[in-house]
Amino acid sequence: MKPNVAAALEALSHLDTTVNPAALKAQSRDFFWYSPVLKARLDGVVADFAVSPATEEEVIEVLRTCYAHDCPVTTRGAGTGNYGQAMPLAGGCVLNLRKLNRVKEIHPGRLIVEPGAILKDIDAATRAHSGQELRMFSSTWATASIGGFIAGGSGGVGSVRWGSLRDLGNIIRLRVVTMEAEPRILEFRGEELARVSHAYGTNGIITELEMPLAPAYDWVDLMLAFEDFPAAAAYADALANQDGILIKLATVIEAPAPALYFQRLKGRVTDTQSLVLLMVAPQAIDAFETFTARRGAAQILYRSDDCDWERGPGLVFEYAWNHTTLRALKVDPAITYLQVRYAFPDHLERVEEIRQVFGDEVLQHLEIMRTNGKVHAAGLSLVRFTTEERLDEIVRLHEEMGCMIFNPHRYTLEEGGRQSVDAIQLGFKREADPKGLLNPGKMISWEDPDWRYERMYAYPGLKDQAE
Amino acid sequence: MKPNVAAALEALSHLDTTVNPAALKAQSRDFFWYSPVLKARLDGVVADFAVSPATEEEVIEVLRTCYAHDCPVTTRGAGTGNYGQAMPLAGGCVLNLRKLNRVKEIHPGRLIVEPGAILKDIDAATRAHSGQELRMFSSTWATASIGGFIAGGSGGVGSVRWGSLRDLGNIIRLRVVTMEAEPRILEFRGEELARVSHAYGTNGIITELEMPLAPAYDWVDLMLAFEDFPAAAAYADALANQDGILIKLATVIEAPAPALYFQRLKGRVTDTQSLVLLMVAPQAIDAFETFTARRGAAQILYRSDDCDWERGPGLVFEYAWNHTTLRALKVDPAITYLQVRYAFPDHLERVEEIRQVFGDEVLQHLEIMRTNGKVHAAGLSLVRFTTEERLDEIVRLHEEMGCMIFNPHRYTLEEGGRQSVDAIQLGFKREADPKGLLNPGKMISWEDPDWRYERMYAYPGLKDQAE
Ligand SMILES: Cc1cc2nc3c(=O)[nH]c(=O)nc-3n(C[C@H](O)[C@H](O)[C@H](O)COP(=O)(O)OP(=O)(O)OC[C@H]3O[C@@H](n4cnc5c(N)ncnc54)[C@H](O)[C@@H]3O)c2cc1C
Ligand SMILES: Cc1cc2nc3c(=O)[nH]c(=O)nc-3n(C[C@H](O)[C@H](O)[C@H](O)COP(=O)(O)OP(=O)(O)OC[C@H]3O[C@@H](n4cnc5c(N)ncnc54)[C@H](O)[C@@H]3O)c2cc1C
Repeated sequence: MKPNVAAALEALSHLDTTVNPAALKAQSRDFFWYSPVLKARLDGVVADFAVSPATEEEVIEVLRTCYAHDCPVTTRGAGTGNYGQAMPLAGGCVLNLRKLNRVKEIHPGRLIVEPGAILKDIDAATRAHSGQELRMFSSTWATASIGGFIAGGSGGVGSVRWGSLRDLGNIIRLRVVTMEAEPRILEFRGEELARVSHAYGTNGIITELEMPLAPAYDWVDLMLAFEDFPAAAAYADALANQDGILIKLATVIEAPAPALYFQRLKGRVTDTQSLVLLMVAPQAIDAFETFTARRGAAQILYRSDDCDWERGPGLVFEYAWNHTTLRALKVDPAITYLQVRYAFPDHLERVEEIRQVFGDEVLQHLEIMRTNGKVHAAGLSLVRFTTEERLDEIVRLHEEMGCMIFNPHRYTLEEGGRQSVDAIQLGFKREADPKGLLNPGKMISWEDPDWRYERMYAYPGLKDQAE
Repeated sequence: MKPNVAAALEALSHLDTTVNPAALKAQSRDFFWYSPVLKARLDGVVADFAVSPATEEEVIEVLRTCYAHDCPVTTRGAGTGNYGQAMPLAGGCVLNLRKLNRVKEIHPGRLIVEPGAILKDIDAATRAHSGQELRMFSSTWATASIGGFIAGGSGGVGSVRWGSLRDLGNIIRLRVVTMEAEPRILEFRGEELARVSHAYGTNGIITELEMPLAPAYDWVDLMLAFEDFPAAAAYADALANQDGILIKLATVIEAPAPALYFQRLKGRVTDTQSLVLLMVAPQAIDAFETFTARRGAAQILYRSDDCDWERGPGLVFEYAWNHTTLRALKVDPAITYLQVRYAFPDHLERVEEIRQVFGDEVLQHLEIMRTNGKVHAAGLSLVRFTTEERLDEIVRLHEEMGCMIFNPHRYTLEEGGRQSVDAIQLGFKREADPKGLLNPGKMISWEDPDWRYERMYAYPGLKDQAE
């Protein structure tokens, strides 16, 4: 099976395609460079052509044509993914969905939308329509697509209330097109959603989504300073356990990261101060203040509803989730990160143990969130990178101390997840992508079923970076 | 200090007052008769007159006048309270707030309302205005007032998501009028709310409330049958821990109570079936079905979105909270109840221990709710009443097994609560009701500061029942 890319491109030339090298390079990359490990391996990855269909029919035509010519297809939302998720390792076609961006229907508690719609635009539409918004969004809200969020993301702002995207109820329905001689259109609900959610587009293309909505409030952004990191973490954890205080974000960032990396806070935060970032519903502000006064240790550094700074800090969630890493990276390119799961109920104790072991080499950044009804912490720790060996060792040490790691320095589904085969996703790929043309190299269990996870997986089909 | 009731009535005769015996009796009673203990003691309680002010100014006039004449004042919302809360033990004036019922303002996430407004009418107004509703309501939604809910209630439908009324954030602001020579108008927020919330109107009259709102969905009512009570309880608990599945109610009722007491389910539920009652947001129905299918043991008996019964069961929450007791009482007058707190994390184990001890004498009715961010169970157990001594013993046995009891067979704040002085409420009563005229006999710490709680408190000022 040798791809005939030229024939595929030729057959699709009546659509919006490009082979312009600059455009191709831009559409072949995501935020993989967050990881020094991935940067070293994927920097030269580039597609042979990109196509931007405007309708589901055009998507189907692209898939049918590429199938006929054995041409790999890697789907792209907005390309804000972190692990090379949207990068065409084997070259071929990038299927760019940015034009498939219509908000189709808005109802109380739910909306129907096309995958290329940007999260921010969706929220603008639902807010204007009926004061609603998405339950949760990645901190790349301003640029990321909803399809990319579902296929590549995990949760984010709102997860402190609603849990993760994978939790039942946080996706209602996905419409999916398969990669076959004659692509099928399938509608997934309930158990079926797990087939394609967070599958990196390896086994189907999402062409329509039905998502639950929550009320859109004029969230008050807050930044609180604490002299003591454990106090900051305990505060954020306790606040998130207040059932009557509606919040959308609770982030904890260890000193001196805020002073070092948050340039708009220069002169306002000291290098001994850890920060808690919050989004609080306006109707909960009194209760928030009451709760905060009871605990004493917090100093309110910033609140968006009462700010006299000459230049405000901007949206608080753009200091949270993976934006924390982004801000750190911009100031200090030696910083990278890890994704850690600190499980309930001893999550805060576990964080302290980790702090004792690593000191400044790993600064804590916690996202307070819910899983199975319990508040706990997800770590997006800021790691001072030295060598790949030391990074692997840091991962191992975390795991030995009972913290699960979702390794962001790997480009496969399995290595970025639980290091095990997802039988549901694999099974559906067998059905929906029999030739294995969708986003090649991302699902180890498809590429190399006997892989043992002892070292980093290297996709043998990776196109020569020199080209 | 001898009350001059006649003079007070005379001075208020230009307002809407009544001394009609039937009207007076009706306005002097609540649902105290749920308790055989209270029924024996309070049956003859009756006010000397009732007055129904239509404005805050009229409320102030009533208070000023009654103060001048040392006339007791017991506030009444709709009189659906359970413990004689709204009953004028010392006679005097019943201040009926039913005409003070305006919905004043509705905003995203909050509303401003007068205390006499009925919960159902509030929800109708906020739903029509902007698709919103109260976060939580007592199951007496159709008849109870918001002022009575705040002053006498604790939580209810919605507490599975939002916790209790006492939790920070579930009341925003209360406007309160004091009982002094010249009544003052005070505005309470934050910590101050605890002064008058759940204080039975013993230390101030609430004349305006600001309450948070949640989105109003077309909740799907469900009844699920289980052959095994522990499986039913575990199911409801686990469902309430699903962060992405939005529910408003999760009630568990042990067999054979549903078969015995739910007359509209005759022939549909067997006497071995325990029930789980649910209200699920329509956008969460798929996820609910997925979750339920995973657990296997449940049989869906009724769902309001797909029902072919000739006569439906009505609103499912009218089988929950204290409506369960009401339905049991109607069928079997020997049934009474207890309010039990089964605390996280071993709430379900505790329920099983209690079941082993009491068998059929105490049937379990659990309301799954949240406290401090954790799902647990509040019991409104159905108790087969024999004697007061045995009832007290059942209370004691619960307490010995580590379950806190809120005794519904007592008419004082302390005995219905944690059996301890609420210093905040008492302190505010000293300020706001120096003559002790508001709802006399309900706050032991005011009436008899040295009381030791060794036996049931008996208010010495209780008016002769023979009159
Ligand atoms: C600064 C920063 C902050 C971030 N914060 C978060 C966060 O808070 N939470 C979080 O979960 N992630 C976060 N991410 C990761 C990423 O931004 C999110 O997952 C984002 O929602 C991806 O959307 P996208 O449109 O950019 O997807 P892309 O990067 O374009 O695609 C992501 C994956 O989905 C696949 N895909 C895209 N569209 C479809 C489709 N229609 N059908 C099938 N497959 C498809 C792609 O092939 C790729 O594998 C962050 C990244 C950065 C750089
Ligand atoms: C079948 C049944 C089911 C119930 N379910 C629930 C439930 O789910 N949750 C729950 O919490 N309770 C429940 N209750 C108890 C009761 O119905 C609720 O507390 C209800 O909200 C009380 O409202 P009301 O207007 O009837 O108050 P009332 O009975 O009139 O008054 C309650 C108390 O508040 C005081 N009060 C009333 N208005 C004011 C005011 N404006 N200012 C100061 N004090 C005032 C009264 O003096 C009295 O002490 C139930 C009762 C019954 C009979």
